[in-house]
Amino acid sequence: MKSEWWHVAARPLNAECYGAAQQRQQQLTKPPGSLGQLEVIAERLAAMQACVKPVIDNVKITVFAADHGIAEEGVSAFPQEVTAEMVRNFARGGAAISVLAKALDAQLEVVNMGTVTEIKSLSGVIDQRVAAGTANFTKQPAMTQGQLQQAMAAGYDAAERAQQGGCQLFIAGEMGIANTSAATAIACVLLQREVADLAGPGTGLDQDGISHKVDVIERALDFHQLNSDDVMRVLQCVGGFEIAAIVGSYIRCAQLGLTIVVDGFIASAAALAATRICAAVGDWMFFAHASAEPGHRRMMQAMNARPLLDLDMRLGEGSGAVTAVATMRLAVALHNGMATFAEAGVTGKQG
Amino acid sequence: MKSEWWHVAARPLNAECYGAAQQRQQQLTKPPGSLGQLEVIAERLAAMQACVKPVIDNVKITVFAADHGIAEEGVSAFPQEVTAEMVRNFARGGAAISVLAKALDAQLEVVNMGTVTEIKSLSGVIDQRVAAGTANFTKQPAMTQGQLQQAMAAGYDAAERAQQGGCQLFIAGEMGIANTSAATAIACVLLQREVADLAGPGTGLDQDGISHKVDVIERALDFHQLNSDDVMRVLQCVGGFEIAAIVGSYIRCAQLGLTIVVDGFIASAAALAATRICAAVGDWMFFAHASAEPGHRRMMQAMNARPLLDLDMRLGEGSGAVTAVATMRLAVALHNGMATFAEAGVTGKQG
Repeated sequence: MKSEWWHVAARPLNAECYGAAQQRQQQLTKPPGSLGQLEVIAERLAAMQACVKPVIDNVKITVFAADHGIAEEGVSAFPQEVTAEMVRNFARGGAAISVLAKALDAQLEVVNMGTVTEIKSLSGVIDQRVAAGTANFTKQPAMTQGQLQQAMAAGYDAAERAQQGGCQLFIAGEMGIANTSAATAIACVLLQREVADLAGPGTGLDQDGISHKVDVIERALDFHQLNSDDVMRVLQCVGGFEIAAIVGSYIRCAQLGLTIVVDGFIASAAALAATRICAAVGDWMFFAHASAEPGHRRMMQAMNARPLLDLDMRLGEGSGAVTAVATMRLAVALHNGMATFAEAGVTGKQG
Repeated sequence: MKSEWWHVAARPLNAECYGAAQQRQQQLTKPPGSLGQLEVIAERLAAMQACVKPVIDNVKITVFAADHGIAEEGVSAFPQEVTAEMVRNFARGGAAISVLAKALDAQLEVVNMGTVTEIKSLSGVIDQRVAAGTANFTKQPAMTQGQLQQAMAAGYDAAERAQQGGCQLFIAGEMGIANTSAATAIACVLLQREVADLAGPGTGLDQDGISHKVDVIERALDFHQLNSDDVMRVLQCVGGFEIAAIVGSYIRCAQLGLTIVVDGFIASAAALAATRICAAVGDWMFFAHASAEPGHRRMMQAMNARPLLDLDMRLGEGSGAVTAVATMRLAVALHNGMATFAEAGVTGKQG
């Protein structure tokens, strides 16, 4: 791993295969364009996989978990011990992401980036704990520069593992009580928007809870006086270990030429940071769903992203991204399996 | 089959199982409500299947195909022979619906309700041809009363076959060159809206083509002077054999207690007619997707329907409905497979 590896260029898409896949869609036995986004999915995957008939056989999900010092400000509806409890639930198969991974035959791994309580060795959980949670970022940077690089490197490693495992889609999930506060703070700086425009209920705050969360984040942003151009400093001051890991994983995926499916609010804040570090990372991204967290739509607009699904999901863990994989697989099945007009002896459009 | 069987009441939903499924969702290891529509899907299926943990193992797709006399007015971008050609393509596995059925392990059958050209015996195609297409409904009723009842009875039979085959979801697809014109005419009368508000490009008309289609449908509606309360007469005068069959299938599904997944524009016009004949049929419906055909949103609003997907699809055949099944299956997997807070030893929401 080079120093400043995150500035290495993303792999270019294959324009020839993209064109060939578009041509194929025009020849399949349906009115041109009538499969809508399903056509777009298949065509983009063709450009990414550099073949006319892409596949999604092998999907890798890495859930990064970490705690947040900001939780002590009372910004979440759930207590901090839930982060570690949920890591165990992921590993034991009881969480949403575990059930979805099994249903879609996807590989799931969990990386402990920094829970407050240590988690004894647990099958399926990789220990890359940077620290016992970040610092409370209303008072000091969430992490040191060294910790940021360590967290991003864990994401780099996850992308490398996915690539070496021969997977075609990479999904980063996250778990971390209070991490919507960190994601909101990052998005406010990068989008230069007011906190009240982007902060939402997270796991279930009421209106008073949201107002308090807005106050806390505003206080933090006043304290740090961050510049939207200095993405690394933004991540260091108001980010989280799991968010930094996701940023690293996305950037490395794009360098390796591995397709990314971005989940909801937290993952999109990481996607925003990653594309600000290197715009071409966005070429490798599908946006899975429009989260019910209100600020998510604003992030999507800023990235010109059209989420595939809109199901009011707001769980995180990668759950929205994995749900979208079922639809993406159908897009690929149609693209690869349908007959052309010539093959089927069907008359084409008139005029 | 009784005469006027379409007035038999729909089976009631099971309120107790609905409540129990809602309670279960509250106990699963996630913030309450955070799976959004996936929770709603599972809860509604529980009410329909009268059990707390519903299943979607067995899905039945019946594609009804028929030709339309109105095609001679030049309202479609494709020639009429495509209807029969596509029936062969369905049976041989090359069409979108064939590929989707295979990908989701759903049973697919095709019912020929009335192609202009006869189709010689073809495996997977049931011949219930009412006539060689409907009459041109700018000049006379599309069909006789007897033909309408015959077509609806074919839908009744399809629902019965699905029920006897032990399926949990029924999807009606359709194929019929010019059938967006029939569906638009039905919707205009039932919703009491202008033709220009509901007519769209169908398989791919340009703006001139749409204007011509609007003129043709307006002429037909002037000719028939239909009343929105007389749904049977609307179906007879401006409907199609496959549309009437779908109406019959939906009504019979609701009587049998079989869940319906409604596809796009044509299927939604049938759903509108079915719910006008018996409002409680709507209790058994999921609306799969928002079609790119512009009038579809207006039909959805009129039925207070929230489509699950919004992927710009506009193919018909049942393709949008089958695509939604992949998401519905994940909803069920989550509902049935996730651990509760108690089972997983995870701390719940505070306060």
